[in-house]
Amino acid sequence: MSVKWMLVFPIATACFVGSSSAGKVLVWPVDNSHWINMKFILNELTDRGHQVTVLLPSFFMAVKASEPSPFQLEEIPFLFSREDMDTMLQDFLFMWSYESNELSFWQFFIKTHDFSREMERRNRILCDRVVLNQTLMERLESVGFDILIADPLLPCGELVAEKLHLPFVYTFRFSVGNTMECVCGVIPAPPSFVPASLGGLTDRMSFMQRTRNMLFYALHDILFHQVLWKDWSKYYSDVLGRPTTLCETMGKAEIWLIRTYWDFEFPRPLLPNFEFVGGLHCQPAKPLPKEMEEFVKSSGEHGIVVFSLGSMIKNLTDDKSNMVALALSQLPQKVIWRYQGKRPETLGANTRLYDWIPQNDLLGHPKTKAFITHGGTNGIYEAIYHGIPMVGTPMFGDQPDNIAHMRAKGMAVELNIHTMTAQDLVDAVNTVIHNATYKENAVRLSKIHHDQPMKPLDRAVFWIEFVMRHKGAKHLRVAAHDLTWYQYHCLDVIAFLISCVALFMFIIVKCCTFCCRKCGITRKTKLE
Amino acid sequence: MSVKWMLVFPIATACFVGSSSAGKVLVWPVDNSHWINMKFILNELTDRGHQVTVLLPSFFMAVKASEPSPFQLEEIPFLFSREDMDTMLQDFLFMWSYESNELSFWQFFIKTHDFSREMERRNRILCDRVVLNQTLMERLESVGFDILIADPLLPCGELVAEKLHLPFVYTFRFSVGNTMECVCGVIPAPPSFVPASLGGLTDRMSFMQRTRNMLFYALHDILFHQVLWKDWSKYYSDVLGRPTTLCETMGKAEIWLIRTYWDFEFPRPLLPNFEFVGGLHCQPAKPLPKEMEEFVKSSGEHGIVVFSLGSMIKNLTDDKSNMVALALSQLPQKVIWRYQGKRPETLGANTRLYDWIPQNDLLGHPKTKAFITHGGTNGIYEAIYHGIPMVGTPMFGDQPDNIAHMRAKGMAVELNIHTMTAQDLVDAVNTVIHNATYKENAVRLSKIHHDQPMKPLDRAVFWIEFVMRHKGAKHLRVAAHDLTWYQYHCLDVIAFLISCVALFMFIIVKCCTFCCRKCGITRKTKLE
Repeated sequence: MSVKWMLVFPIATACFVGSSSAGKVLVWPVDNSHWINMKFILNELTDRGHQVTVLLPSFFMAVKASEPSPFQLEEIPFLFSREDMDTMLQDFLFMWSYESNELSFWQFFIKTHDFSREMERRNRILCDRVVLNQTLMERLESVGFDILIADPLLPCGELVAEKLHLPFVYTFRFSVGNTMECVCGVIPAPPSFVPASLGGLTDRMSFMQRTRNMLFYALHDILFHQVLWKDWSKYYSDVLGRPTTLCETMGKAEIWLIRTYWDFEFPRPLLPNFEFVGGLHCQPAKPLPKEMEEFVKSSGEHGIVVFSLGSMIKNLTDDKSNMVALALSQLPQKVIWRYQGKRPETLGANTRLYDWIPQNDLLGHPKTKAFITHGGTNGIYEAIYHGIPMVGTPMFGDQPDNIAHMRAKGMAVELNIHTMTAQDLVDAVNTVIHNATYKENAVRLSKIHHDQPMKPLDRAVFWIEFVMRHKGAKHLRVAAHDLTWYQYHCLDVIAFLISCVALFMFIIVKCCTFCCRKCGITRKTKLE
Repeated sequence: MSVKWMLVFPIATACFVGSSSAGKVLVWPVDNSHWINMKFILNELTDRGHQVTVLLPSFFMAVKASEPSPFQLEEIPFLFSREDMDTMLQDFLFMWSYESNELSFWQFFIKTHDFSREMERRNRILCDRVVLNQTLMERLESVGFDILIADPLLPCGELVAEKLHLPFVYTFRFSVGNTMECVCGVIPAPPSFVPASLGGLTDRMSFMQRTRNMLFYALHDILFHQVLWKDWSKYYSDVLGRPTTLCETMGKAEIWLIRTYWDFEFPRPLLPNFEFVGGLHCQPAKPLPKEMEEFVKSSGEHGIVVFSLGSMIKNLTDDKSNMVALALSQLPQKVIWRYQGKRPETLGANTRLYDWIPQNDLLGHPKTKAFITHGGTNGIYEAIYHGIPMVGTPMFGDQPDNIAHMRAKGMAVELNIHTMTAQDLVDAVNTVIHNATYKENAVRLSKIHHDQPMKPLDRAVFWIEFVMRHKGAKHLRVAAHDLTWYQYHCLDVIAFLISCVALFMFIIVKCCTFCCRKCGITRKTKLE
């Protein structure tokens, strides 16, 4: 196990109301795009003089312990290699992206279930290797960390924090149906106007959509409680040596840093310890590499279109890539396409392929007219930041939901990647470029994004440092955490009040009956 | 009617993410302590180069149109003089503060009802004099205001905004039972952990307290809907020439600036367009007047106690003032007492009376050990800001509730001003000075108050300027505003789902019955 002490950046000048002396930060990360986002927070923390230690599984793809890093990397050796994890993930994404249309619901469900179970099994082994490794835990304890930052997509971070008696902060995009945020974080989500994540709905729902939304919440509540959390709750109780649940432990998070903001999110109730810091990774565009800049400049007045399906989709089927390339070749714009697959035969002269693109810098280039995207949150935020309208071709995860948000906000056209034709793609790109409302809405959302009291990254770092300064943020924690679900909804009070009314009515009826009978007897007696 | 164009301060350097060019601000104010708070926002706006026009009733006590002001004062002549209003208010406060203990519930209710009705009648006349005065409205329209800022304690501000087609922002402390905020502003308030204002409860309630809290919300909901808002809704519909309600109009507020923060408030759900900006009027202490500073310094190591019952209570009964003076004379501290009534005979040598005191500067003085207060929000925030523990003697309005908050947060001892003895007061002051937990909690809350991402006044001004820049803040407005109450709570969906289940059960039962009968007949036939 290698522990590497890396470069610590000089302490930046404190610019907030409060300022922290250099602290020690422990990190429980999640791979791929989750890391891309979290990295910006960690970089800012090191820039401000804090010492950041990342618990890094050896299969982690976004960071390698052997490469230089501004963070201290505490590598956790693992049974499965990086390549093995990558293959498993790619197979699953390929199934979800291309085969899901041809599978029956049950086939799809079983494949998804198997994948989730395997991921969970691996995550449990990973967790064992941390919390049950006494040497490691003692060493971590001896460092004297001030805080743990975790992405709660995969459990265990909060358990490490509890074992080390550390306050912890989450940085999170979402859980399915917002179940973790709502049930464990107790953030209110009235199903009448807060669409459950992955439900594909907006905040304006018809009666049937509201019904669907409510059922979606309820079903995921049951699914998480009865299936997904059960084993973890037992595991947490065993490790901590006291009865607890995963959800109760998660509810101890001091602050939830959510990776969206009201430019993207439909406005909804929140809690004082939820901060919406979407787009914290966005920055003004930097100059492009020379070759790319020349290609962009050569586009003339038509400008360019940027096309990326994100870091996880590396290739398409030949048919699909040829169809897409053919469509792009018909555009008057120059196209920059991030694509690692086989070069399509139909690729036009106006289109260039790149293994990797400086996406933020490209979207911030004055020549950029549109963005064709799979709809990942990071890419969407770069488009909002720079005010670029989008064509969304969502594939899996939160992507359909993200594009539904952007469509509702008038900044995107959506295409079904499974069924779209070349002409559909050409039409969609032309629509977002030539129908002025898309650009206007993109600019409007961009203005909203830029016009905040404080930049999202600064807010995120402020609250992390706040927790370090005050050893928590208990003044932001609602008392609802200590209520049962029926107390929270006042069902016991309602039952009590209904009983009182029923008892009152019963007494009234009995009294009336008694009086009537009495009168009846009297009258009868009189008549007799 | 006099219109005075006053001094406009030079434009301050923009320090936010966004910055506004000089704009025009119209103000619908409320008198006394409400004005004291709002004035700080308006001063900051003039400092930042905006032109502020205040619609000033001629009976307004906190500002006189004849005195110099940084604001343009649009005086609204009124039937009732300032003295008349003051007498009415003083009589009512005297009744509430001293006589209420001797009155029956009904006598108190009738007196309160009469006062409220008279205040409402006068406010309606005032409203008439603005919205029905076509010359004034045309003149206001011709100015080209960008925004209206209103305190919604007394209706009409939002009506003026609607007539002038202006976006408006509220600055507000609370409504009884939070009815305006919850029903019109649709901020969620689960009765299980959000105590209704004026209910005197905290966020940790027993079963019976939750029941009381729920009934308190429900009764005020009915009271406001069925009594207090009915006439206003008809009036608003008549003036605007379309069917509407007071509550619907209030719900159009772009931002609600609430005069508390999580140092004082129990954490609760909020909405993106609610900003908690409590303590925006607090500032670092300035030097005291020479004579006062000498008196304070002479207190030695014992320090001083600051005593004020606020700007509205000018005198006490002779018995009460003598009892209080006697208690204060027994303290080893020097006492600074803001009091305009007759000099008590028992006044000790350690106590000095002042018509007015620089309260914030006194509370920020290093010699200050404790604050005896009626529990007004402004004073409480000055104590939080400077970390001074309190003895609360609440009298009326939100004061009992405010002191309940401070007691729950461990920063105050409460006394009943009607029943307390001199010894009670001495003991209470000694407790908050010598029991270290009160000072520790005061310092803890003070640290929380000072450690915000952005100062409350800056946040308030940011959002006002945001509304001016963007002509509103619709991206923060939840879709719940467009739902009926039963849609909001999904009662229609629940009824539908219950019906579906009932129908399903009915069909199952019928099928079973049918099958059983069929089997029965068959068996019977066979047997025959």
